[in-house]
Amino acid sequence: MSFLTNAGLYTDYYELTMAQAFFYEGKKEEQAVFDYFYRENPFNGGYVLFAGLNEVLEVLLNLRFSKEDLEYLASLGFKSEFLTYLEKFRFSGNLFSVHEGEVIFPLTPVLRVEAPIIEAQIIETFLLNILNFSSLVATKASRIRFAAGPRTVMDFGMRRAQGLGSLYATSAAFIGGVNSTSNVKAAKTLALPLSGTMAHSWIQAFDDELAAFMAYAKQYPDHTVLLVDTYDTLKSGIPNAIHVAEFLKDHGHSLKAVRIDSGDLAYLSRPARQMLNQAGFEDVKIAVSNQLDEYIIKSLIDQSAPIDIFGVGTRLVTGHDDGALDGVYKLSKFSSKPRIKISENIAKINFPDAKQLVRISNSKSEWVADAITLASEKNIKKIFHPYFPEKNMDLTHHHAEPLLHQWIKKGSATKHFPSISEAASYAQQRLNMLSPDYRRFEYPHEFKVGISKKLLSLQRQLLDRYRNK
Amino acid sequence: MSFLTNAGLYTDYYELTMAQAFFYEGKKEEQAVFDYFYRENPFNGGYVLFAGLNEVLEVLLNLRFSKEDLEYLASLGFKSEFLTYLEKFRFSGNLFSVHEGEVIFPLTPVLRVEAPIIEAQIIETFLLNILNFSSLVATKASRIRFAAGPRTVMDFGMRRAQGLGSLYATSAAFIGGVNSTSNVKAAKTLALPLSGTMAHSWIQAFDDELAAFMAYAKQYPDHTVLLVDTYDTLKSGIPNAIHVAEFLKDHGHSLKAVRIDSGDLAYLSRPARQMLNQAGFEDVKIAVSNQLDEYIIKSLIDQSAPIDIFGVGTRLVTGHDDGALDGVYKLSKFSSKPRIKISENIAKINFPDAKQLVRISNSKSEWVADAITLASEKNIKKIFHPYFPEKNMDLTHHHAEPLLHQWIKKGSATKHFPSISEAASYAQQRLNMLSPDYRRFEYPHEFKVGISKKLLSLQRQLLDRYRNK
Repeated sequence: MSFLTNAGLYTDYYELTMAQAFFYEGKKEEQAVFDYFYRENPFNGGYVLFAGLNEVLEVLLNLRFSKEDLEYLASLGFKSEFLTYLEKFRFSGNLFSVHEGEVIFPLTPVLRVEAPIIEAQIIETFLLNILNFSSLVATKASRIRFAAGPRTVMDFGMRRAQGLGSLYATSAAFIGGVNSTSNVKAAKTLALPLSGTMAHSWIQAFDDELAAFMAYAKQYPDHTVLLVDTYDTLKSGIPNAIHVAEFLKDHGHSLKAVRIDSGDLAYLSRPARQMLNQAGFEDVKIAVSNQLDEYIIKSLIDQSAPIDIFGVGTRLVTGHDDGALDGVYKLSKFSSKPRIKISENIAKINFPDAKQLVRISNSKSEWVADAITLASEKNIKKIFHPYFPEKNMDLTHHHAEPLLHQWIKKGSATKHFPSISEAASYAQQRLNMLSPDYRRFEYPHEFKVGISKKLLSLQRQLLDRYRNK
Repeated sequence: MSFLTNAGLYTDYYELTMAQAFFYEGKKEEQAVFDYFYRENPFNGGYVLFAGLNEVLEVLLNLRFSKEDLEYLASLGFKSEFLTYLEKFRFSGNLFSVHEGEVIFPLTPVLRVEAPIIEAQIIETFLLNILNFSSLVATKASRIRFAAGPRTVMDFGMRRAQGLGSLYATSAAFIGGVNSTSNVKAAKTLALPLSGTMAHSWIQAFDDELAAFMAYAKQYPDHTVLLVDTYDTLKSGIPNAIHVAEFLKDHGHSLKAVRIDSGDLAYLSRPARQMLNQAGFEDVKIAVSNQLDEYIIKSLIDQSAPIDIFGVGTRLVTGHDDGALDGVYKLSKFSSKPRIKISENIAKINFPDAKQLVRISNSKSEWVADAITLASEKNIKKIFHPYFPEKNMDLTHHHAEPLLHQWIKKGSATKHFPSISEAASYAQQRLNMLSPDYRRFEYPHEFKVGISKKLLSLQRQLLDRYRNK
């Protein structure tokens, strides 16, 4: 189930002008290889959690240009043979990628497209749009999960999300580890668990807070979370919530939780917990919200604030304080020749040719490095620092796990695409294999990435060729 | 033309649970008044450019619950009479708002909904989602426009936008003042001008740069912008671009521009301009891109970099470095009674009752303040600081312009909704009336907002009533 339908024109204009130019240049059958990779970890973190693959695959397999699309392109001056080509457009290539929910690192090619150049070019924009944002939010969610430990995390971000970006935000948040969402559209489309409490407007619509609480509890006797900060959390909200809890108990039900949405959450949660406990409601949980992120959650827990549930909004769904992952999609092979892009900045020189990505573990099954190799290589014995090859690592006695799997072959799915919940499980399993050194928020350890001797030589050779021109 | 279709479930779960509870509490016919306002200017700026109204109005008029939506809600346990109510759901209320593209300030009620409580509640989430993000990006775009002056600004942000948020980002960017976009889907839907150049992959797909340039120029002899930084901007890109410009000139065409996408743009643009001029191509423009925002554009212009066109991406469409506007939607009247929300934080206490917003100009037609009044008030003579009423302003000899206009009356449009280009013109006209003191990037002047005596008294009276409880 994809959120992006009619995706033909969900692209940058230049993808289409280049596609038409490739068409009339007689290059439309030429095979291209593109890599997706990113350069910098967001949030000053040590990794990215890869997400958005499922959506990319669904969109790719259903990519068409409608009659209306073609009429629009004709109105822009696109030529008729090219439009006839687009009318029959189907993605006919191959797609290799790491698993949805994989833990990935800068500069590593985590997704590879092999297709005729026009196809590979046209899909660039939506692929980047989906993967960059989904991976950003999945990463953010995994950090929030890391901070929250076993406590419940709810996604409340829809109202502050970047428009319809809310849909990808919610699915990515689940992959990263949230437990539920308030976003009904996303939940329906992806079969996700919903949760919600009540708004201040509910309280304000009654003449007093207790009447508002009671009315809601009568409607939802087993699912009520009372918002206790409309007038005064400790003087009014919690005492009224205790009345409701007693009423529900007398009728064989129980109050689920109270929610504090303002004020000092650490300070308020302690007496709130105490008052609830003293009234015999140890199992009524305390939920909090209000501009939460991984840092505030960590701080609340460090202060032993007795909080059970975190409602996280804006900073989760917008990836505050990084608004975008810098993922790019670069040509590495065209018409059977490996290709390179030079740059003033050495880190922006790409790795040529079709490649495999291999995760290296030591004899204790700890991840120690990622190896980038040519796709054709097997059993790499040594990897080299890409810019300082005198630094290298011997891989004898190490385990090598190839990470790029084929998901699409000649335009058809090769296997089941993981669901959100499968991806979320996979992500947690992989994150658990990542040493906390790479997960900590301050100055995380840098994961090693090396390249094979053959890839190193190929890159040098291409660089020399261009430098000597 | 709206980007959000089937919006019934594009909402937070609690809107629906509260709606059902209002329904069974017998409150479904009760009239509610809600205000939309924001609290803090983004980007440490002095104003917000209001955007997203057109989309909100379109979605509101077409808001329905499909059969599939209702089946889904039934599966979640919603009850059948309530679902029957939703089946016939139509928005039947009133909507008042400032104009699309209005310049607005913190705490002022810029949009007011009057409707039966269930309707007013259900629309909250999409209204906030659309207005918060659109206004954020329109504001950012207006700052970029301010920095760029008369130079061309292109939106290139789609690949780094927050998923489908790209659609609202592009429309808001136009309202704020960009000239064109690369986003084909948005351009088609809203009839916006497209632009684009070429990718590094186009250059890499040819054996040398000049061949790549020539092939593109032959396809688009009057629309070519050459990307000159794939190998070496000054040693290779610009000399090759000059060859192409000569070729095009010999054939009665002309090269439109070159684009520099990396390196020091100020440093590179000067010799690039000089080389083009020396070859007789003064009219070939220089476009630049690469992580631009209002600050970098201002710096480039301050350095007299000879740049004609700015391609702005990530930081425009994600509103870097603020990912969200903090707009809220608060109940101010219910069942004929003005309502208030108390808070520990005095700035979070809302203004009760249905209100009008009035822009005050002095005898020189300069904007001096915004006045918040009761909707029923006319000819206010004095306004008061909302928290320090001893500070006040006499309005004699001032001009008062009511800003809230009715767009929807009893569920029907009362007038033509402004198009993007109309909104963009309106925005520029209004921004031109705003003194540069409020537009500057560092410590802008704070625009005065006052409230009427009657509103002040009403707020105090409600506060006293709750405090004495």
